[in-house]
Amino acid sequence: MSFLTCFSRYRTIWLKDLDTVQIIDQRHLPHEFVIEDVLSLDEMCVVIKDMHVRGAGLIGCAAAYGMYLSLRKLCTSSSVEQVRECLQNASKKLCATRPTAVNLRVGVEKVGRAVESVLGQNGGGSVEAALEAARKEAARITDEDADFCRRIGEAGADLLQKLYERKKSSASAAEGELKINVLTHCNAGWLAFADWGSALSPVYAAFDKGLPIHVWVDETRPRNQGASLTAWELAKHGVAHTVIADNAGGHLMRTGLVDVVITGADRVSSGGDACNKIGTYLKALAAKDNNVPFYVALPSSTIDWQLRDGAEIPIEQRGDDEVKYAEGLCEDGKRRRVLLTPESSSAGNWAFDVTPSRLVTGLLTERGLAEASEEGLAALFSEVDRT
Amino acid sequence: MSFLTCFSRYRTIWLKDLDTVQIIDQRHLPHEFVIEDVLSLDEMCVVIKDMHVRGAGLIGCAAAYGMYLSLRKLCTSSSVEQVRECLQNASKKLCATRPTAVNLRVGVEKVGRAVESVLGQNGGGSVEAALEAARKEAARITDEDADFCRRIGEAGADLLQKLYERKKSSASAAEGELKINVLTHCNAGWLAFADWGSALSPVYAAFDKGLPIHVWVDETRPRNQGASLTAWELAKHGVAHTVIADNAGGHLMRTGLVDVVITGADRVSSGGDACNKIGTYLKALAAKDNNVPFYVALPSSTIDWQLRDGAEIPIEQRGDDEVKYAEGLCEDGKRRRVLLTPESSSAGNWAFDVTPSRLVTGLLTERGLAEASEEGLAALFSEVDRT
Repeated sequence: MSFLTCFSRYRTIWLKDLDTVQIIDQRHLPHEFVIEDVLSLDEMCVVIKDMHVRGAGLIGCAAAYGMYLSLRKLCTSSSVEQVRECLQNASKKLCATRPTAVNLRVGVEKVGRAVESVLGQNGGGSVEAALEAARKEAARITDEDADFCRRIGEAGADLLQKLYERKKSSASAAEGELKINVLTHCNAGWLAFADWGSALSPVYAAFDKGLPIHVWVDETRPRNQGASLTAWELAKHGVAHTVIADNAGGHLMRTGLVDVVITGADRVSSGGDACNKIGTYLKALAAKDNNVPFYVALPSSTIDWQLRDGAEIPIEQRGDDEVKYAEGLCEDGKRRRVLLTPESSSAGNWAFDVTPSRLVTGLLTERGLAEASEEGLAALFSEVDRT
Repeated sequence: MSFLTCFSRYRTIWLKDLDTVQIIDQRHLPHEFVIEDVLSLDEMCVVIKDMHVRGAGLIGCAAAYGMYLSLRKLCTSSSVEQVRECLQNASKKLCATRPTAVNLRVGVEKVGRAVESVLGQNGGGSVEAALEAARKEAARITDEDADFCRRIGEAGADLLQKLYERKKSSASAAEGELKINVLTHCNAGWLAFADWGSALSPVYAAFDKGLPIHVWVDETRPRNQGASLTAWELAKHGVAHTVIADNAGGHLMRTGLVDVVITGADRVSSGGDACNKIGTYLKALAAKDNNVPFYVALPSSTIDWQLRDGAEIPIEQRGDDEVKYAEGLCEDGKRRRVLLTPESSSAGNWAFDVTPSRLVTGLLTERGLAEASEEGLAALFSEVDRT
């Protein structure tokens, strides 16, 4: 696939001009690299709901830009009330697209506050100032997301380095054969954020430092974000990897083939419970059963400080067809979906599950490693108002 | 799919005439019902290796008929030595097709012994007597497999009935809404044996008695035996079921939506460790973590009495393409496979994993329920020579 190597480095979302947000339409990966123009709030809602973009961080950035795009439709003479009404409507629509991830709601709220802070400053509704504030805040959220992810990579690479040193000192194998085997679930790479990623950021940072690293990629049914996105990212970066069925991780851990599990998260409770792609909990159980460290990597924007118990996180249910069909590239070069089940069978499609903090070795954040507990998170983010 | 309901009840393997074994070619299910003629040992090896037939019990029956077919190629004047040589060669070829399941080896050995017992009785090599002995033994193995599975169903239905009574007495819901939710992995239904199945036999028996029952069907990547075979069997039998991604079971157990897990097994150690389709171990961990009973259903032909520790069971590794592709029915009615990963990515494909006995609530056999331990199995099968 020549396009794997022939294009320069992208972010996942950016402003092309003042009317146009551009995204990578991830539904076409790994077989095609498609950039999509997003021109309105409604288009952005479709882009998020139908998963042209996905991933905790990225849908936060996309929602922020969705708020901005909603304001572009106002005429310049609109009142403060009309601006507020416009944003309230946009906020409602955006928050309904994906109920589980907290970054989306946070992105929407931040843009709302940024606009509110400039409204009425000139004695009336200045749509221009509101637009400018929304655009700047969406860009700031996106830059911050990338920056937090980069820092997660630095902290995580240190951890992988230590695992490598420990393995080297205990192993009988020649140094040249030694490698760190990371298992990851779903896609928490640069495609899931503005840039870098959460779970994969440590992998990239360690790889770039020369650490010998290999990634077991859970395919992550039903939408195959592992097989399509994580494998594509790793291939593009040159990181050794092997795609496996979601069923395989337990066996790999039992036979000593996994040194560490790192996943992302869509929402982490203030008590350290991690809501992530369905199936994460099963891998956490296997890690615990085999003394394999299990880390959850996340920018702090993924923490829901108001929620203590992860069991209260609403779990999105998606359509049957994602389970009943698989989509991919046919030998004639056409993308098709194939029916896997009897036509008459129904399917259940919960998109996320919650891994209780007792199964989490640590939370990898932009400020370093936190214990997966209320105390652990509070120690690292002491300034946060938890009331 | 009209053929779901319009054909009468089949077994999975039978002798059409003395030269022809017939099987259901399961690769075409759930979309097409295809019967295949198998005329030689080499054809039978392909049928087993490429999984036209699969399932612990059925590949034992198929291997037994493979031994029979190998003898059909001898000329009637062959010597005792030629008969033995023929069977040794057949045994070697058949055992190499699938290394994990023990029924296959047992089937081969039983036919070997049955033939040996008639060889030389008439002072020389009687190919006819050998053929007759092989044919009878293959038929006996097949009948016994079906009979053992029927009895597993009876024992298991009692167990489901008890779960139902307990749920009824503790539930606040009206009786009409109550049902028993069984989760199963892979296919251990009648398609996996001569008839009835192991894990699904209790479901059928309970359903036929009128117990309200619903089955969560793990799709069971990479070969989707759950989505294609278990769902098809259940649909055909009229049992309510929902296909789920293999990732979903943990979440369902955490939210109280699973009353019991029942799986089959490809080999069970004398200590009660259960080797079954890859991913079974992950479900057993989730069951343990949520106090959901986890049963393994198996005819005793699946027990490897010579093996104490399940970790020693050889785990078959299959081709990359089973992971990299998914196969199914396109909207134009054609069967195709679609590529899910980047073309350059490699894949790992372990077909089985081992669930340690500590995670198994009980073993459901043709003699009833056994504790998953050396003592438990010994108590039920006291006549077996374990040395």
